[in-house]
Amino acid sequence: MKGRILSGMRPTGKLHLGNYEGALRNWVELQEEYEMFCMIADWHALTTEYEHPEQIRANVRELVLDYLAAGLDPKRVAIFAQSDVKEHAELHLLFSMITPTPWLIRNPTIKEQARDMGLIGEGEEVTKINYGLLGYPVLQAADILIYRANAVPVGEDQVPHIELAREIARRFNYLYGGFFPEPEPILTCVPKLPGLDGRKMSKSLGNVIYLSDLPKVVKEKVCTMFTDPMRIKKKDLGDPEARGCPVFLYHKLYNSHEIAQIEEDCKAAVLGCVECKGRLAERLAEFLTPVQDRRREAEAREGYVEEVLKDGAKRARSEAERTMEGVRERMGVG
Amino acid sequence: MKGRILSGMRPTGKLHLGNYEGALRNWVELQEEYEMFCMIADWHALTTEYEHPEQIRANVRELVLDYLAAGLDPKRVAIFAQSDVKEHAELHLLFSMITPTPWLIRNPTIKEQARDMGLIGEGEEVTKINYGLLGYPVLQAADILIYRANAVPVGEDQVPHIELAREIARRFNYLYGGFFPEPEPILTCVPKLPGLDGRKMSKSLGNVIYLSDLPKVVKEKVCTMFTDPMRIKKKDLGDPEARGCPVFLYHKLYNSHEIAQIEEDCKAAVLGCVECKGRLAERLAEFLTPVQDRRREAEAREGYVEEVLKDGAKRARSEAERTMEGVRERMGVG
Repeated sequence: MKGRILSGMRPTGKLHLGNYEGALRNWVELQEEYEMFCMIADWHALTTEYEHPEQIRANVRELVLDYLAAGLDPKRVAIFAQSDVKEHAELHLLFSMITPTPWLIRNPTIKEQARDMGLIGEGEEVTKINYGLLGYPVLQAADILIYRANAVPVGEDQVPHIELAREIARRFNYLYGGFFPEPEPILTCVPKLPGLDGRKMSKSLGNVIYLSDLPKVVKEKVCTMFTDPMRIKKKDLGDPEARGCPVFLYHKLYNSHEIAQIEEDCKAAVLGCVECKGRLAERLAEFLTPVQDRRREAEAREGYVEEVLKDGAKRARSEAERTMEGVRERMGVG
Repeated sequence: MKGRILSGMRPTGKLHLGNYEGALRNWVELQEEYEMFCMIADWHALTTEYEHPEQIRANVRELVLDYLAAGLDPKRVAIFAQSDVKEHAELHLLFSMITPTPWLIRNPTIKEQARDMGLIGEGEEVTKINYGLLGYPVLQAADILIYRANAVPVGEDQVPHIELAREIARRFNYLYGGFFPEPEPILTCVPKLPGLDGRKMSKSLGNVIYLSDLPKVVKEKVCTMFTDPMRIKKKDLGDPEARGCPVFLYHKLYNSHEIAQIEEDCKAAVLGCVECKGRLAERLAEFLTPVQDRRREAEAREGYVEEVLKDGAKRARSEAERTMEGVRERMGVG
């Protein structure tokens, strides 16, 4: 084992191919090399969903199924809901005592997120937002450090949060003696996988293919995909790479051994978009079949999701409790 | 029973007469009429003592002894350390999700405290301080509401914090349906009890009489007390009330049945300051004797303090857990 990883997502609904390529594919590989704690961040979901928390519980379940479908092995990886390991809240509180508020205010990711959510206008102070949203990187630091994880697989935008976790670890170690490792980000090389319309794949844009989409749905969705914008008719010569044809980008990922031929045929106007999409739909269905088989299998086992969560929480708690004993000892509280 | 009270102090060292008159005397009376949860706020102590937490554990023990000495009855009152009831941290985290940061920034008490501690200069933003210090009123709201207390005995300076707890309760009730009562402050009528030198009694000013000071020490301290500044010699006529003689103020509290005579004799220059102080020292010793007897008794019982804390935490946890079940249900997390 190369070390220990904390990974996690917020339970915001079923996952799509963009989520898979951006994170899960990587996690499935990492589980072979690292000891992994995989958190379902339901408390984090509340930082933004607190006005409508009705869906959170159902989404936690959904996310476990997606994790299993993607190939995470619950025997290897502790899959658990954050709110089942109360120690995260305790460490968050203790970290808050040693974290200067300016460290949070200057965090570019929170600022951007607050702006994207319309919570603050251009040039407005991030201190207008809720206390918990402002401090969610402190909670994230607790999530990571409570397992004394030394690595966290993240996208580029999450790097400032990992940096904050490192700063908090350093500050704790300085004040109370060396205890926490300084976690390193494992940057996920996100391959280009746009949505159906060529924009970023995003649920709110309605341009996604879900991991749970059945072949018929996949086919329908692929039919609507944008292609090389200069190929109006089949006889128009294509240039899928240069013109960023979304269908071509998908072929690269899910049909790589045919990719050279497809490019050639597209450029020669031998392969039309309709047929090209048909082939992609087949490859995607092939790719999704084992994923959906694993999902169905997990769904069919009565109480299995609950069992995975219970067992994951037990393993996570046992590690978290061990860390907290050291923290409490050093900070002089019970 | 008139309702339920949450009271509490930070464990910052042994208590003095100012603490007793400002809070404890009132609590001892209130325990007759209210169900009381009496917290030793060790997590709160960390908001300011995080750089030197070594004393906190010893201070928790000290504070239990002072509570018992003052006459709090652990059979009636649940006396517990905050950090032994982890649910406070969980509720603090959940409340942070629904608390706008500006509610904290505009809190006058935090601002004043940060200035007093030299953390911010005149006119500087309170957002410079640590995240946990900025948010300690959120933790305090959790402390109160986790017991669904409807009353909190506080001094004037704490009223903004109770108001915040009420605002958070209202916001929670608005978002998730009526659940929390809105706690009311029970204002402690603090009688004027200055320090030995006439200034506010405060450990840092070195002008205090501790509840644990033995008669000999009390006598020595009283000897150094300031008196009517116009009575240089015994034959000078006194006016203790008008000139705010500290010794006279003490007599008012601890020797009330003699007070009229003392005033008369002081004004007539019949009673000299030395004798007057001698009498006060005797009354104080009389007052402190049962307090110190109770303290000694508690100290003599092997493991008794630990037992009080354990039993108090058990009762507190059971109530806190009940509240959290309702909160988790409403906020859609485990």
